[in-house]
Amino acid sequence: MTTLPRVMSKFRLAVVQLHVTSVKSENLSRTRTLVKEAAQQGSKLVLLPECFNSPYGTNFFSEYSEKIPGESTRLLSETAKENKVYVVGGSIPEEDGGKFYNSCTVFGPDGEMILKHRKIHLFDIDVPGKIRFQESETLTPGNTLSMFETPFCKVGVGICYDMRFAELAQLYGRKGCHLLVYPGAFNMTTGPAHWELLQRARALDNQVYVATASPARDETASYVAWGHSSVVNPWGEVMTKAGAQETVIYADIDLQYLSDVRQQIPITSQRRHDIYEVSCVKETESS
Amino acid sequence: MTTLPRVMSKFRLAVVQLHVTSVKSENLSRTRTLVKEAAQQGSKLVLLPECFNSPYGTNFFSEYSEKIPGESTRLLSETAKENKVYVVGGSIPEEDGGKFYNSCTVFGPDGEMILKHRKIHLFDIDVPGKIRFQESETLTPGNTLSMFETPFCKVGVGICYDMRFAELAQLYGRKGCHLLVYPGAFNMTTGPAHWELLQRARALDNQVYVATASPARDETASYVAWGHSSVVNPWGEVMTKAGAQETVIYADIDLQYLSDVRQQIPITSQRRHDIYEVSCVKETESS
Repeated sequence: MTTLPRVMSKFRLAVVQLHVTSVKSENLSRTRTLVKEAAQQGSKLVLLPECFNSPYGTNFFSEYSEKIPGESTRLLSETAKENKVYVVGGSIPEEDGGKFYNSCTVFGPDGEMILKHRKIHLFDIDVPGKIRFQESETLTPGNTLSMFETPFCKVGVGICYDMRFAELAQLYGRKGCHLLVYPGAFNMTTGPAHWELLQRARALDNQVYVATASPARDETASYVAWGHSSVVNPWGEVMTKAGAQETVIYADIDLQYLSDVRQQIPITSQRRHDIYEVSCVKETESS
Repeated sequence: MTTLPRVMSKFRLAVVQLHVTSVKSENLSRTRTLVKEAAQQGSKLVLLPECFNSPYGTNFFSEYSEKIPGESTRLLSETAKENKVYVVGGSIPEEDGGKFYNSCTVFGPDGEMILKHRKIHLFDIDVPGKIRFQESETLTPGNTLSMFETPFCKVGVGICYDMRFAELAQLYGRKGCHLLVYPGAFNMTTGPAHWELLQRARALDNQVYVATASPARDETASYVAWGHSSVVNPWGEVMTKAGAQETVIYADIDLQYLSDVRQQIPITSQRRHDIYEVSCVKETESS
């Protein structure tokens, strides 16, 4: 087996399943408290949910939107710096040039913003009698892959519906990401049906760790999130999973284990590049 | 919703989870009996397991191998014709020009062979203390995608380990297959861990039906198959699943339902072909 330097081969990841309310200042102060709690537990990277500063819904995006930098992302920067952790800031509704985006910002332990991912695949679905949602009525999609480096591993970022598109995860995997993070807010129809299956599929097919962060479930909200933030290992096993309520969950990411799995079932080297290829059409990336 | 002609939009699929023994003639006669049984239940397509005529193991491949056509494929042809069904003949060890392949043959209701798929990805894994297997010690891989048309839908074929490679299923999906079939013999380590997850992932990510056929479990065999042949629908749900023993399972494939799922969660049209692409490097295909 390939042996990685022991000091860097493990790190603790935290996922904050925040109870998001309609009061932005409360969302931000709870975020500050819970990121600190996660750091005190030894976490090096803290993942927040999609729309952590705002209720989720096309009618809220404009009201809660901010420029970047702005109030919410300044909070993320400060919190990252104060606690010396990477903060993957879930997402916020971003306003830029009169357009709105669903955007994830990432901050390093020095408080610098190192990445901005705008959701590539907008959530437009219509399951009759169950759930209809059309993000594209309000939002504009991003157009790039988004990866960032840490001392532990390279990380690929997607937001919620991005997780349904296997190609994105495949490209992140091929480009050396060992951890994929998806802030997301699946609902009470697609949550029980697909949330865990998609995470486990991305993890197993690419032999990477996958972490998801959902808002806590709020039955009084217009859009009820499924919750169940999770971390899945490269064998496709759920390592830890939240329930429906606000909580912080932890997982120790072990890159030596990832390397062992890739040695045991060596699909990475066994892929038939002479027959098929997953490729990046546009090489521009936020990273 | 797109409406398909009612007459062709549904058909019954049968999966034969055959108890494979070391006596080839017994395997063939049980196959004949069970395909007939499946046809009598209204099935239009019958799927057999990997290595349905032979124990699974590198030490058996040479002894049980045949040219195509040969004894086992002649039996498949006759059985298809007698019962007026499509028979996807799992696989047999094929000998051709001194080389050995793990090959799936497909016969139409007139008894004509319409496809031969040679396993593209050979099963070479090594999970210490659990399972080590190296098909490549004996076998040569195939080099092409394999699809066939029926009056109901187009079908994509993979064998066992081929299922771990998402790209193959993605290409079948993009090329219009609505059903993927994987004869396969997962084992007592990878079976419980990955067999169902892989099928559900392929089905959900490509919004297709997926059917798998395993040999029945034989605890006395050198390689113990997991069993649990299954059919999964385009929503990612297991429609029917065998236990460990010999049985025939049935599923009514509903192409209108597939069309509805694709309308509800329209990932097919939402893929970002401006950002990524899954492509076929070699356009040669058996179809």
